[in-house]
Amino acid sequence: MASNDFDSPRLLYLDDFKVGAVFISDTLSISKEQIIEFARQFDPQPFHTDEQAAQETFFKGLAASGWHTASLTMSLLVRSGFPCAGALVGLGADVKWPIPTRPGDTLHVETEVLEIKALRSKPDSGIITLRSCTINQNKEAVQIMVTKVLIPKRA
Amino acid sequence: MASNDFDSPRLLYLDDFKVGAVFISDTLSISKEQIIEFARQFDPQPFHTDEQAAQETFFKGLAASGWHTASLTMSLLVRSGFPCAGALVGLGADVKWPIPTRPGDTLHVETEVLEIKALRSKPDSGIITLRSCTINQNKEAVQIMVTKVLIPKRA
Repeated sequence: MASNDFDSPRLLYLDDFKVGAVFISDTLSISKEQIIEFARQFDPQPFHTDEQAAQETFFKGLAASGWHTASLTMSLLVRSGFPCAGALVGLGADVKWPIPTRPGDTLHVETEVLEIKALRSKPDSGIITLRSCTINQNKEAVQIMVTKVLIPKRA
Repeated sequence: MASNDFDSPRLLYLDDFKVGAVFISDTLSISKEQIIEFARQFDPQPFHTDEQAAQETFFKGLAASGWHTASLTMSLLVRSGFPCAGALVGLGADVKWPIPTRPGDTLHVETEVLEIKALRSKPDSGIITLRSCTINQNKEAVQIMVTKVLIPKRA
């Protein structure tokens, strides 16, 4: 696991971020029941909802919906206290799922600051670009997400 | 609302898709309670979980998590029967949230085929690029998503 450049609990403003800094989240584990419950609500396809039927599909076994992996990633970022002043509000996200999340996986998120940009149109804030990799217990990335987040400048 | 080019219930293969064809989903409505329940689980920030506190934030009122809007979009596509042979499996997604989903919103999804591409590496399938706009009762897009989906060719 990479080392955490965000070990202080204080909230960071645009001025405080540095390109290349890395934030490491806590971990969480995901059960078969949680995968099925999320999928029944939001992505009811057999490889997400039915352990037996999933064996015969592309996924060769039960797999979490990509939107479940994305939602768990957000949960890990918010609960671990990613230290944005203001809020963690994404303007958009580019998400890739190289492999699925499986029942019993333990995930954490490693987030790196890729870019920091002041806004001419909003002199009191700016945008940071973050790459968040969601990583399982085998050190495989189940999700790679690039987001742009609006952050206030220090007053 | 745009007209639906996918009114046949048969499953479509790569060969059947046409650039520019549009699929219109069913609609669903989202309640305050559902917004709060999703956010408590996956995105527990005050503007998603607390109606009073949300008034004082950037959002000026309760707003659904972007990941909730994305998950509802997937639900609308799957339940309305987006007619992919095989499955609706995204390799990745580029998501933007121009405005938030609000309590009481009624959403539907309009999906247009942007590109169809055979795969040299996988002669039995190809990739279609879809743009799915999630639209509220005021005809405003709450989400614009571009996805790449793997689709089998007709045998």
